[in-house]
Amino acid sequence: MKNICLLGATGSIGTNALEIIKAYSNRFRLVSFSFNQNITLGRQIIDQFAPLYVAVGTDKMAVMLQKEFPHVSFGYGIKGLIEAATLSEVDLVLTGLTGSVGLEPTLAAIEARKEIALANKETLVMGGELVMAAAAKQKVRILPVDSEHSAIFQCLAGQRREDVSELLITASGGSFRDYTREQLKGVTVEAALNHPNWVMGPKITIDSATMMNKGLEVIEARWLFGLNYDKIKVVLHRQSIIHSMVIMSDGAYLAQLGASDMREPIQYALTYPERLPIKEPKKFDLAAIGTLQFEELDVVRFPLLKLAFEVGEIGGTMPTALNGANEIAVAAFLEGRISYLEIEYYVQQAVADYQVQAVESLEQLLAEDQRVRQYVNEKIKEGARR
Amino acid sequence: MKNICLLGATGSIGTNALEIIKAYSNRFRLVSFSFNQNITLGRQIIDQFAPLYVAVGTDKMAVMLQKEFPHVSFGYGIKGLIEAATLSEVDLVLTGLTGSVGLEPTLAAIEARKEIALANKETLVMGGELVMAAAAKQKVRILPVDSEHSAIFQCLAGQRREDVSELLITASGGSFRDYTREQLKGVTVEAALNHPNWVMGPKITIDSATMMNKGLEVIEARWLFGLNYDKIKVVLHRQSIIHSMVIMSDGAYLAQLGASDMREPIQYALTYPERLPIKEPKKFDLAAIGTLQFEELDVVRFPLLKLAFEVGEIGGTMPTALNGANEIAVAAFLEGRISYLEIEYYVQQAVADYQVQAVESLEQLLAEDQRVRQYVNEKIKEGARR
Repeated sequence: MKNICLLGATGSIGTNALEIIKAYSNRFRLVSFSFNQNITLGRQIIDQFAPLYVAVGTDKMAVMLQKEFPHVSFGYGIKGLIEAATLSEVDLVLTGLTGSVGLEPTLAAIEARKEIALANKETLVMGGELVMAAAAKQKVRILPVDSEHSAIFQCLAGQRREDVSELLITASGGSFRDYTREQLKGVTVEAALNHPNWVMGPKITIDSATMMNKGLEVIEARWLFGLNYDKIKVVLHRQSIIHSMVIMSDGAYLAQLGASDMREPIQYALTYPERLPIKEPKKFDLAAIGTLQFEELDVVRFPLLKLAFEVGEIGGTMPTALNGANEIAVAAFLEGRISYLEIEYYVQQAVADYQVQAVESLEQLLAEDQRVRQYVNEKIKEGARR
Repeated sequence: MKNICLLGATGSIGTNALEIIKAYSNRFRLVSFSFNQNITLGRQIIDQFAPLYVAVGTDKMAVMLQKEFPHVSFGYGIKGLIEAATLSEVDLVLTGLTGSVGLEPTLAAIEARKEIALANKETLVMGGELVMAAAAKQKVRILPVDSEHSAIFQCLAGQRREDVSELLITASGGSFRDYTREQLKGVTVEAALNHPNWVMGPKITIDSATMMNKGLEVIEARWLFGLNYDKIKVVLHRQSIIHSMVIMSDGAYLAQLGASDMREPIQYALTYPERLPIKEPKKFDLAAIGTLQFEELDVVRFPLLKLAFEVGEIGGTMPTALNGANEIAVAAFLEGRISYLEIEYYVQQAVADYQVQAVESLEQLLAEDQRVRQYVNEKIKEGARR
């Protein structure tokens, strides 16, 4: 029996993970989880899985739920996330949180020697250097859950790392892959949230449209697989069927492909190194699909992807700044405060104005993250006043 | 330094293998090789690689070459092949022989505990049961060289065998994949030898056109990877870019892809578990290729493929009979004695008339092989008289 802590239980990763835990209740037990706001679904999860500990968004919510569920322990905020992740009963922490909030509980879980299944790429973008060093020190395995990174991880199994020459991350191109820069000017929040292949949360869907998501994945891949940025390539593959590839030193490509079903990489991270059948799998038939398409990626169309490579190369706290700026800009777009192309503008400006530091501590990263967020928020306010 | 015996040095596999041995002369040494008739190329290989032992086609040729190269030992016929393969200096035997002649020297090499790199699929079709039992007993590794089987082998590295649910072998469809049965009636030897993707010897090129090659590969895969025939599927993939795939129990597909360059699987078998760059690699760019196509395979169009599955399921000496009948029929077609569609006819008839036996010994397999060959040869003569 593997005891699971699920951070972000009511999100897209979380609900898929719950399906798996339920389907294989003989193997997995949900001992703790977190959710932020969706109290209706949160209550259902408590009823169904009888966890020991639940972390929620606010003090008030924790007090209210404590009365309803006297046998469950509750916490809230970042402290709640850390308690959920470091509970002594927990074997594996699956983090499906959105954004930078994932960093602290993941680091705490690593220090407590919990296995990590990581769907929260911002954790590695913000704090890759710290997280990987802590994982190496504690001998903790970080299993990727992003479909691209899971694909690469699956392809690398049984291969010698010194024989890997490149990682080739596939990109669907997001909601606006066929728009000109001119057409991008007027796109709405609704249009941006309509991803062609995957149903995901709003932040990652916008990131997919701007290709910042692919940029964050590039930085995540650098930390997970230890290859330099010049060895990480992105190819446009509209159908998201090949989830990613590796190129070996002899020219052989190894690829992982399949249905667009997040349960597959989530379940693989939970069962690794074993595999289990997906319950009620989506139909997948290559002959019926007929063709797989690949195209060169136009980086001029997607400046945030190019920026992510540059920021990654600079290293230090620069990716932390990129991530914080992007979170604020995407939130502002989702709230209707800035236009779609202004996401790029504010992120680029924040990076250009940022003074990079060498990475020293978690406290430093959190402080830099806050500083960049304030900076971008002020810039957006200034912009609105003009 | 790995000491190589190369059986079939002047053929398509052989000449590619020699390029690799030459390119990595710091790692590989050709200590013995065989060729059948191409004495001009044979002499060049002796000059260039200075082997200890050479097996040739005939007694006469051996005597002649012995005078020219007094420091090299020569042998001929099947005995020569066995001596070349079992030489005490040999570490690995790469068998690029064509047809059933590969079985005996491969078995002898296994008994002598040489590592095997197998390009001669007829060895496993004829004698899979004996060969795999001998390899298991002697703890000898059989490394596949066929691009399809190398792909599967590469995909399976690091995967647990119990998690594999299917093997998916890709088929280009050969020279006549778009011909109707009616059009197939009149095809010439020249047209059949014109394979769309790979430059190979005449026997395998005809086998590719009839899809018997794919059938032989299915039987080979059954022995190499130990999966039952209902777990082995064939999908039409015209471009031969994905060399084959495996389907895991959770629905994940793992694929190996790359340029159509036989040096890749040959070199992988020689360097396994390491990889080395291919010298002067063929260009391979997925974005430039643009699309990969997959189609359902029409077994009515390719009855020999269907037959191979049936014959494989029957087991015993039936695959030996299938292989012998096919070799005779293909040779008769190449010599202009029968038409293209008569290859199918004679193979089907031989299998239908054959009484299967349980596999007992090498001698039995060789005798059954001879018996079927005689039978088909007589049938062809009868047909010519009519």
